[in-house]
Amino acid sequence: MSGLRLIKSVQEMSSLSENFRKDGKRIVLIPTLGYFHEGHVSMMKMGRSLGDKVVVSIFVNPLQFDKKEVYYMYPQDLERDQRIAEEAGVDILFIPSSVEMYPSGFQTYVEVEELSKHLCGVSRPWLFKGIATVVLKLFNIVRPHVSIFGLKDYQQYLIVKRMVKDLNLDVEVVAHPIVREPDGLAMSSRNIYLSPQERESALSLYRAILKAKELLSSGVRDVSQLKKELLDFIQSHPYTRVEYVEFVDPETLESVREVKGPTLLALAVYVGLARIIDNAILE
Amino acid sequence: MSGLRLIKSVQEMSSLSENFRKDGKRIVLIPTLGYFHEGHVSMMKMGRSLGDKVVVSIFVNPLQFDKKEVYYMYPQDLERDQRIAEEAGVDILFIPSSVEMYPSGFQTYVEVEELSKHLCGVSRPWLFKGIATVVLKLFNIVRPHVSIFGLKDYQQYLIVKRMVKDLNLDVEVVAHPIVREPDGLAMSSRNIYLSPQERESALSLYRAILKAKELLSSGVRDVSQLKKELLDFIQSHPYTRVEYVEFVDPETLESVREVKGPTLLALAVYVGLARIIDNAILE
Repeated sequence: MSGLRLIKSVQEMSSLSENFRKDGKRIVLIPTLGYFHEGHVSMMKMGRSLGDKVVVSIFVNPLQFDKKEVYYMYPQDLERDQRIAEEAGVDILFIPSSVEMYPSGFQTYVEVEELSKHLCGVSRPWLFKGIATVVLKLFNIVRPHVSIFGLKDYQQYLIVKRMVKDLNLDVEVVAHPIVREPDGLAMSSRNIYLSPQERESALSLYRAILKAKELLSSGVRDVSQLKKELLDFIQSHPYTRVEYVEFVDPETLESVREVKGPTLLALAVYVGLARIIDNAILE
Repeated sequence: MSGLRLIKSVQEMSSLSENFRKDGKRIVLIPTLGYFHEGHVSMMKMGRSLGDKVVVSIFVNPLQFDKKEVYYMYPQDLERDQRIAEEAGVDILFIPSSVEMYPSGFQTYVEVEELSKHLCGVSRPWLFKGIATVVLKLFNIVRPHVSIFGLKDYQQYLIVKRMVKDLNLDVEVVAHPIVREPDGLAMSSRNIYLSPQERESALSLYRAILKAKELLSSGVRDVSQLKKELLDFIQSHPYTRVEYVEFVDPETLESVREVKGPTLLALAVYVGLARIIDNAILE
C-alpha cells in the first residue's frame, strides 16, 4: 500500500496535479459523493488500470440538491471511505469544502441545454446545471487526462461527454458499467435509506428491465404498450411511486415511440423516501 | 521578424499549445474579432512583454451577435490583419471557423449570471453568455497562461475575470487600458461605420466622461443629476440615440445613487447605425 493522501485545499490539489503533469504522470479523476460501495471500488480499480495517479473526489455538491432534499442527510463516513479507497489503490482523496468551491459572489454556471431537459431534468431542472458546473470545476482543479463516470447515472455521463466536446476540454470520459447487488439492485449510496420491505420493492426496477427485454423478445415494440406493462408491474409493488419510465434515444435522450435501434430504458421510482434510478440499453 | 503562423484548425492549435507548454513557454492569448486598430496593436505589444508565445485569435462569434445585427457585416480584412500582427511581433493568428467552433449538436453554454444582467446585458441578454462561452472554449483550446482584455469592453473584462475565478481556470486575466484617437474617441473596429458628421457626434461619449469629471470636481455627486446633465449633453449632438448612461459599482456593476468611492461611468450610444460604447472609472 503506497499510502492514500487526503487533500482538502483546492490550491494544494491543483499544484499537486500540475506537478504530476510535469512528471508525465497520467491523472485519472473519479468524481463521487462519497459513502463508497462496490460500484465505487470497481471504478477505482478501473482507474488504477487507466493511469498513474488516481484521484477520487468526494463532494456533496449543494448545487445538485434541492433544498427540500437530502443534502444535509446524504450519508457520510469518511473514515470508512478512506479505508476503502486506500485498499483499492487510490492515490488521492480530494475533499474540498463547499465554501472553497462556491465562495461568496460565485455566479458562473455551465449548462448542457438540450440533454439536461429530459429524464431526471424534468422534475429537477437545476440538477444537471449543478452537475456540469461542479464537474467542470473539478476538471479544472484536478486537470485529469481521464475521468470515469458510472452508467447508473447515464444522463450525467452523456452530459459530461457533451460538455467535454462542446467546451474543447482535453479529458477522456470513460463509462463504467452499472454494478449490481447479487439480486440485481443497482448499487447506490442511497440504498441505505431502504427498509427491508422497501428494498424488496426497489428490486422492481431491475426486474422491470428484465421484463422489458422479455417483452421485446416476444415482439412487443410499441413504447406505449411497453410503458404500460412496466408501470403496472412496478406499481404492483408496495411503497413505490413512479417518477418516470422512459424509452429514449441513447444519444439525444429524446422519447421514441417504437423500439427499433438501440434504445435506453430509464427509470426513476421513489421507494419510500428514497429515489431509485436504473437504466439499460435495449438492443 | 520571426514569421507569423496562421492556424485555422482547432486541433492544430491545441497540439501546438501543448508543445509550447511542454517546452516551458509562457502563452499569451488575445481574443479579438479582427479588423485591427491601434488598440489591438498595443495589446499585442503588451502580450510580447508578458510571455514567450503571443497568440491572437480572430473569431467573429455568432453567439454574441443578434441576428438582426451586423454579424455578416462585421468589418474584415485578413491580409491587413496579418501584416499588422506580424509587425507587432505576434507568433500565431488563430482563426477558427464557426463550423468547427459550434458543430452540429453544440449545446453547452457558460453564464456569469449576475454581472451579465447589467449595462450591455439589459438590451442584449444573450451577449455575455455568448462571450463567456467562446472565451472559455478559446482558453481550453489555446491553454494560455495569460490573456489580455481591453477595458473599452469593461463589462466583458469583469465577466471573464469572474468566470476564471468561479471555474478555477488557471489563466491570468490582464486588463489593457482604453486606446483613444488623438481627439479622445475610443478606438473600435466599429468606428468605420461612422460618417464624418457621425464621427463628430461620437466624440460626445468621451466628452461626456470629461464633463462628468468636471461636475464631480465642482461637487455634484448625485447620480440622477449627473445622468441628466450627460444625457442632455449627448442628445444635443445630431444622430445620437442613447442606450444607457450608468454610474455603477466597478466590481458588481450595480447602480449607485451617489458617487462616493470609485465608480464606473459606462455609456452606450447609437450614433447613426453604429453602437458606440465608452467608460471610465471616476475616483
